[in-house]
Amino acid sequence: MDPFERLIKALGRLPGIGRRSAERMALKLVRDGGGMIRELAAALGEVERQVCCCSKCGNVTARQQDPCRICTDPRRDTHVLCVVEDPGDIVLIEKAGSFQGRYHALMGRLSPMKGEGPENIRVAQLLERIKAEGIAEVVLAMNSDVEGDSTASYLHDLLKDKGVKITRIAFGLPAGSGIAYSDPVTLARALSGRVEMD
Amino acid sequence: MDPFERLIKALGRLPGIGRRSAERMALKLVRDGGGMIRELAAALGEVERQVCCCSKCGNVTARQQDPCRICTDPRRDTHVLCVVEDPGDIVLIEKAGSFQGRYHALMGRLSPMKGEGPENIRVAQLLERIKAEGIAEVVLAMNSDVEGDSTASYLHDLLKDKGVKITRIAFGLPAGSGIAYSDPVTLARALSGRVEMD
Repeated sequence: MDPFERLIKALGRLPGIGRRSAERMALKLVRDGGGMIRELAAALGEVERQVCCCSKCGNVTARQQDPCRICTDPRRDTHVLCVVEDPGDIVLIEKAGSFQGRYHALMGRLSPMKGEGPENIRVAQLLERIKAEGIAEVVLAMNSDVEGDSTASYLHDLLKDKGVKITRIAFGLPAGSGIAYSDPVTLARALSGRVEMD
Repeated sequence: MDPFERLIKALGRLPGIGRRSAERMALKLVRDGGGMIRELAAALGEVERQVCCCSKCGNVTARQQDPCRICTDPRRDTHVLCVVEDPGDIVLIEKAGSFQGRYHALMGRLSPMKGEGPENIRVAQLLERIKAEGIAEVVLAMNSDVEGDSTASYLHDLLKDKGVKITRIAFGLPAGSGIAYSDPVTLARALSGRVEMD
């Protein structure tokens, strides 16, 4: 294959990158004439050698530190497990700074439309961990869309007789937003999830 | 720098890729566990060794073929030069298949907002080529937006007393589209650019 075409194909395999974006990126790399290409290639090599996904929770971690820093942190509550779709979600929840338990990334979500079933996500590992680690509560932190909802209810059905408490993160008004800017579904969820003030 | 962070930074330097997209791309590469990283790194290396921009027109070409295939094609009309902003535009015009002259990519456009002046685009090389190659007609194929318009009128002012015919590609209704779907600017341009039928 033509080297330029091969680069376009390789870039096009990245998530969210279509043919036209891949062409623009490849063009920019050629036009730059070497510096950007070398930096990207070096960064790729370093990541390949030094970075992996935590064998326990799926979070991005250094190869020398597997299980990752969160999984091995003794100050963490080992009885609460937060299940997310994607390792990227772990970073975002950590930034929020209010969760003290540990994580489990499914590496995907149920999506019958795309042919993604339970065997394509890390469900078996989740069941194993719940048993092996004596988990008391599983927090489902799926996204708030059709596939996130169906993944959450699948996990609920699967876990409900395993003797663990199952919770799902709250849905409602985003911080700093007003009722006037909310869509009906968000508003309905905010109302049905209302909490008593004390 | 952390290898994962370094990869995110390198990906984020590509056009159209923000921080969040770069994170998703880096995550996908780590999750894939090696195959995608190796393929992308290999494609980058091959492009760095074998591909460059044509020293004459700026088109993407093999390093062994500089000037590029279009610049050296004896069947091309050497007196007509089509000036484009980006080498990617050359590919698109070639696909249209109706232009028989040669090209000159400016590698950018005038954009005072972004601090891009005539010294940042290949204007000096254009003047040189017009003189050296005996160009009779310069076709300005800039985009149809504010920056494209100002680049075209800058080039028009610069070239008008150089003894070359200066034309700009036509603006009007896109093929297969209707008046009902056109915006007022397109329609005004289509009307003012009307052509006598014969």
